[in-house]
Amino acid sequence: MREAVVDQQLAALARRDSTVRAFVCLDAAGARRRALAATGPFAGVLIGVKDIIATAEFPTRYGMDVDDAGPREDAWCVARIRQLGGTVLGKTVCTAFAYPLPGPTTNPHDVTRTPGGSSSGSAAAVAAGFVSFALGTQTAGSTIRPASYCGVTGFKPSYGLMPLDGVQAISTTLDHLGLFAHSPRDAWYLASAMIMPQAEVVTARRPRRLLVLRFPPELPVSADYVGRLEALADTLRGEAIEVNTRDLPFPMDDFRSLQSELCYWEAARILLSPGRVRPVPELQALLAPYRDRDVALYAAARRRRGAYRAQFTALVAGYDAVMLPAATGVAPPVADTGDAVMNRFWTALHVPAITIPMWRSGDGLPLGLQLLSGLGTDRALIEVAQWIFERPPRHCEERSDEAIQPVGARPSWIASSLRSSQ
Amino acid sequence: MREAVVDQQLAALARRDSTVRAFVCLDAAGARRRALAATGPFAGVLIGVKDIIATAEFPTRYGMDVDDAGPREDAWCVARIRQLGGTVLGKTVCTAFAYPLPGPTTNPHDVTRTPGGSSSGSAAAVAAGFVSFALGTQTAGSTIRPASYCGVTGFKPSYGLMPLDGVQAISTTLDHLGLFAHSPRDAWYLASAMIMPQAEVVTARRPRRLLVLRFPPELPVSADYVGRLEALADTLRGEAIEVNTRDLPFPMDDFRSLQSELCYWEAARILLSPGRVRPVPELQALLAPYRDRDVALYAAARRRRGAYRAQFTALVAGYDAVMLPAATGVAPPVADTGDAVMNRFWTALHVPAITIPMWRSGDGLPLGLQLLSGLGTDRALIEVAQWIFERPPRHCEERSDEAIQPVGARPSWIASSLRSSQ
Repeated sequence: MREAVVDQQLAALARRDSTVRAFVCLDAAGARRRALAATGPFAGVLIGVKDIIATAEFPTRYGMDVDDAGPREDAWCVARIRQLGGTVLGKTVCTAFAYPLPGPTTNPHDVTRTPGGSSSGSAAAVAAGFVSFALGTQTAGSTIRPASYCGVTGFKPSYGLMPLDGVQAISTTLDHLGLFAHSPRDAWYLASAMIMPQAEVVTARRPRRLLVLRFPPELPVSADYVGRLEALADTLRGEAIEVNTRDLPFPMDDFRSLQSELCYWEAARILLSPGRVRPVPELQALLAPYRDRDVALYAAARRRRGAYRAQFTALVAGYDAVMLPAATGVAPPVADTGDAVMNRFWTALHVPAITIPMWRSGDGLPLGLQLLSGLGTDRALIEVAQWIFERPPRHCEERSDEAIQPVGARPSWIASSLRSSQ
Repeated sequence: MREAVVDQQLAALARRDSTVRAFVCLDAAGARRRALAATGPFAGVLIGVKDIIATAEFPTRYGMDVDDAGPREDAWCVARIRQLGGTVLGKTVCTAFAYPLPGPTTNPHDVTRTPGGSSSGSAAAVAAGFVSFALGTQTAGSTIRPASYCGVTGFKPSYGLMPLDGVQAISTTLDHLGLFAHSPRDAWYLASAMIMPQAEVVTARRPRRLLVLRFPPELPVSADYVGRLEALADTLRGEAIEVNTRDLPFPMDDFRSLQSELCYWEAARILLSPGRVRPVPELQALLAPYRDRDVALYAAARRRRGAYRAQFTALVAGYDAVMLPAATGVAPPVADTGDAVMNRFWTALHVPAITIPMWRSGDGLPLGLQLLSGLGTDRALIEVAQWIFERPPRHCEERSDEAIQPVGARPSWIASSLRSSQ
């Protein structure tokens, strides 16, 4: 069984990665050998690692055109995965220094579309069925947005839940590890195994109260997407779940740009320092004004963040989750990696976020449902996300294309690989 | 002038470091040569670097009995100091992995007393006049407490203000860089130079409203210390500054142990990982139970922290600073590094903290005044601290012993070295 899954993944890779281009570098034969010989809860599991995370066996290039820019030492998360028996198939494409300049990766659902970024290859590698999991990061919207574009589960845990040792820092108070998986349950299986002594298999939990956020018209969220979310809310109400709707209670300026304000100030201090690999010129130009920026402006943004955090805590009190679009629409053409406006503010608040593949647009492209909850309520959020992910009508069943649901009847890696083989 | 200061510092080092034992390793001749040849705003300035922070020229041992445990690459903060023209004299003693097992360093004021920890050597090196500045860290009370014990200024900026690249991680959401200096103005001169394009020389600012925190009797703060703080409050009231007093508004259990709860959970994930230098057995034993601990307990502690943070924001609104003891009393005997209970809770809240040398106990040992303010108001806090530091009667003038005030009439490095020589 383990061998069949690995071989199916490597066959998909051989067939499609010349088009998808999810990997910067990889070792398929070595990974197969190690995966079949491995022991532990993740034995036989192939994992992609975003090329901003250091590994002992592969160079780390941060999406740059350099030979090797990172330490040749496993990052904390990679060392932990190896300890659990997991196998790193290779390093996945990220945009240069996680800045939104597109890399070579294409969307597995449509070669003319972006997979999103900056964790472009990680999202695409899971969507195309090359790996069971992939590691990414999220400083603005680099996990949730590409997961939505590629039709997979993307999970950004609460800030601080996952140590970032060995992950190239972008922004001191915004960097998070992100996980890509075939289901919320899978995502928590990996996340919990990484931070706890035993991996946890969560049970889907029916929510009692949900909150749908409504956004002002100046935000470029597609009407189709909003309509589908409203229809889902109605369906859930019909199933006796209380679903309330509220207008976004945060000032639009800060919702759009508070995270950038913090990020650019912090990133200017890290990435424009001497003795480091220089970021791409576009990113240097973007950050340069922030090098000269008064710390008082940064501090004021930090204080506003503190107030919004308290406001968010009050907003979600009594709700199992907040529901909203995971992006502004389907994946745009490859010329850019899409708009992170539906993600960046929540990243700044440090709260857990997950997206599950929920709908398809008229032209067959995935649209994710994003769920948020209070800081530290990661497991409870996953339980509710799993319930929505599983509930009939299974929205995921709309996915018929082999390219989209490459592991066939196995939307959950746990349900298939682990339970049937061990 | 530059040469005179450097030679005075190196003479103090030659005379006293066999007793103080502030350094793990150092290069006095090389540092002298580099300091005299340097250019930039910190040309000629000797700096000590806590041995938990990586440097290219010296090994990093994290206070462990190993040859070299860290990367041979400058941490962000070290690279930045070099770019500013500063000279690293050597690596200062820290307790093993910043856990409170005493290292060899003694308190420059009394060889039978601890300098505090974990930034033991950094505090002692500044107090003994070996360096103008030293870098430390604070995850619980590792900067403010030793600075108080050693009679120097210690500054822990707001969380996230200083990138931690290249500093051994202990605890994902608690680690901070800390600075030791001869005055608040000096501390901000270095801190601002590190994170801004231009170093800022702050002006002392007379506070209008201050808040003194009163602690319940079960906390082991010495009555003498509390009495001195109350007397200072009365003095300031006599100078028409509004000084209010409030009982500590946080539950005593969490005030004592919320930070430990968060720290041990996070540290167990980082320090007990495979492929790392193992921490000392005492620390392994302390952390082991947290490896098996449910993430829900950690998450609950994170949520309580969020509530306390909002409560603290409300508490300090309208005040220039909160005043409280920097430690529970004077430096205890060398058998342990002292109690961090007056620091750890505030570290968990991420707010800026500074201590200035303010009083002397009956037996001549220093006692620091700790000042706190809202997240991100670091510069404003420093301005007020500088005013209290400078105001007549200059409490610092009580320091007459050459060992205690080694740079003689130079309580501020800026006021002396920089302004007179450049």
